[in-house]
Amino acid sequence: MQFSERIQSMQASPIRKLVPYAEEAKKNGKKVYHLNIGQPDIETPKEFFNAVKDFDDKVLAYAFSQGIPELRDSFKKYYRNYNINFESDEILITNGGSEAILFTLLAICDYEDEVMIPEPFYTNYNGFGSSAGVKVVPITTKAEDGFKLPDKDTINKKITNRTKAIMLSNPGNPTGAVYSKEEIDTIKQIALENDLYIIADEVYREFVYDGLDYISFGQIEEIKDRVIITDSISKRYSACGARIGCIASKNKDLISQILKLCQSRLCVATLEQVGASKLVDVSQDYMKEAFNEYKKRRDVVYNALQEMDGVMCKKPKGAFYMIAKLPVDNAEDFVKWLLTDYDLNGETVMFAPAEGFYATKGLGRDEVRISYVLKEEDLIKAMNILKEALKVYGK
Amino acid sequence: MQFSERIQSMQASPIRKLVPYAEEAKKNGKKVYHLNIGQPDIETPKEFFNAVKDFDDKVLAYAFSQGIPELRDSFKKYYRNYNINFESDEILITNGGSEAILFTLLAICDYEDEVMIPEPFYTNYNGFGSSAGVKVVPITTKAEDGFKLPDKDTINKKITNRTKAIMLSNPGNPTGAVYSKEEIDTIKQIALENDLYIIADEVYREFVYDGLDYISFGQIEEIKDRVIITDSISKRYSACGARIGCIASKNKDLISQILKLCQSRLCVATLEQVGASKLVDVSQDYMKEAFNEYKKRRDVVYNALQEMDGVMCKKPKGAFYMIAKLPVDNAEDFVKWLLTDYDLNGETVMFAPAEGFYATKGLGRDEVRISYVLKEEDLIKAMNILKEALKVYGK
Repeated sequence: MQFSERIQSMQASPIRKLVPYAEEAKKNGKKVYHLNIGQPDIETPKEFFNAVKDFDDKVLAYAFSQGIPELRDSFKKYYRNYNINFESDEILITNGGSEAILFTLLAICDYEDEVMIPEPFYTNYNGFGSSAGVKVVPITTKAEDGFKLPDKDTINKKITNRTKAIMLSNPGNPTGAVYSKEEIDTIKQIALENDLYIIADEVYREFVYDGLDYISFGQIEEIKDRVIITDSISKRYSACGARIGCIASKNKDLISQILKLCQSRLCVATLEQVGASKLVDVSQDYMKEAFNEYKKRRDVVYNALQEMDGVMCKKPKGAFYMIAKLPVDNAEDFVKWLLTDYDLNGETVMFAPAEGFYATKGLGRDEVRISYVLKEEDLIKAMNILKEALKVYGK
Repeated sequence: MQFSERIQSMQASPIRKLVPYAEEAKKNGKKVYHLNIGQPDIETPKEFFNAVKDFDDKVLAYAFSQGIPELRDSFKKYYRNYNINFESDEILITNGGSEAILFTLLAICDYEDEVMIPEPFYTNYNGFGSSAGVKVVPITTKAEDGFKLPDKDTINKKITNRTKAIMLSNPGNPTGAVYSKEEIDTIKQIALENDLYIIADEVYREFVYDGLDYISFGQIEEIKDRVIITDSISKRYSACGARIGCIASKNKDLISQILKLCQSRLCVATLEQVGASKLVDVSQDYMKEAFNEYKKRRDVVYNALQEMDGVMCKKPKGAFYMIAKLPVDNAEDFVKWLLTDYDLNGETVMFAPAEGFYATKGLGRDEVRISYVLKEEDLIKAMNILKEALKVYGK
């Protein structure tokens, strides 16, 4: 039996494909520090679980396709805190940020249309592109420049008559980059001059360090009809398993088009919507504590990497990821080796090989993405394992 | 700003697009009996809610992309009760039956490939087809024949070199048809002779009336590598809002391909998986009671329809839907009129116009789909409203 070309051409997730090696390592008694996946260890707010536990309908019925009113309202209220003005009917609830991106691509692109994305990018963008039959056109950015965007002319050269949008995550996964006012302006100009949408994946909005100003694409009046925010509660409230995200856009016609896709899959899980709608009430203390925790972790990992011979990493400004260049030929082989052949006192560490985050062949082969989602003492141990492992790898 | 052609060509859900009229009617104080949507009123088993309430992890983390082991195991155990043998690793958990179908289409079809589907069919198949860029090729069946499949030659004429599969729901939504051994054999032969997949949407497996034998495509050894079961807990356990479904196939290579799609959207909601994994323990009494209730409802609605002048409806054999031909030119106008202009003692009824369940233009214009998901006394009232309304409509 044959499979489709599109599915055969999809890569296995670079974040998850080495998991079997990790499972095997654990079976053999090794402890594995998971810095490969963006699964935070911060507690999910009680408000979520309490709301779920208080649910007492007798029938677990379909919710509205666009999301329950309480949850759409809570996103609206949340956005107001960031000076982003969306009305509830400009927000559609989705199965995580994942579905938000897939639906957005389906709504604005036909088969073989193109979307430009700065690389390295969140690897699952490839999967959504393949699913939607949309060509991902990478705009290369580099670790040694802190993943700064290239200038307007360089980006313009990538535009064809099939280009429909520029998509980017800000703060960036896997780069930790936060775009400056100048970079945001460049994107804005390009979108205006070439009639493109901007798909802004802003799920790490909370995590911007060092007092930097954060600019959301949702704040820019001039481009409000061409900005589509894709969002998720997963990271900011440590609720990845809830699969609650949204699409927000001032372009109401677009929202009404995407609603058809929402209707075709009926609704997002009802209980999770009920829980998520209470998250807007989470205290500022909770948010601040999580923020401080991640900042501390970033510093621990970043400082440790600076001490390692041959490792290159610019200080990331946001999210909870960084890309490090390692003194190895092939980071995937190295990560596998860490799981299968190496341990330091019975412990090892797992990263995501970065090659899968690039669309351009050959880039990122010597890089890994590090998710700093564990507590400080574990990160210190994990970094020490990396340091010692690099000393013996390949010898 | 432009939208994609595919999204513009998607129809609004015929089940949901008239909802605003129903909302308006309710605002004006009218009671509306909802026979338009397959939202059962049967209580969701306590086992589900109890498991959710007992969940006490502090972090609501991502689940495995393929689904949590307990839930995959519970589907395996469930299938054994129907003499369908799937191993846990032949089952992938999905966001309802909806995602199961979308992922299946993506995995076996490329852009402009074709899938044959007996019409009238579950209207959202159109949406999944549009999303995947797959052409839906209808095989017309007729109300007056009880929606029996045409013979092999008629179906064979629809096959082109782009045909990848035949997809059908059995028991059928919206038809209530249950395929006979002869019809199943026809599909089997066609699949074997033309190297096609069979996508079997069997979410109404429990609801087969009148002592009929039910044959699942998962029971047929000869075609086990080409059968893909798409399934859902929504209907059998009255848990539509859980959005828990699955893909099951003995074709392990196919499962490993589809896993890539599962990975790209990370996972299905964790809590809902935890709840759903306990549903296999639901008592036979619960299942039997629900079955008897639906059978009684079918009879109430079917018998009432037989008494109405100009109404045509063959007795449906399964699921909880039936299609009725009404003595009106345009059933959508009639349904709208029921909501906006008609009431019987302050009450009215809502159906789904059937035209949207056909792919062939013009078919089903005088038909509605009736979901018999309300309790007997409400169905009696709703049928009485229909009877009286038909007497005055168009006069």
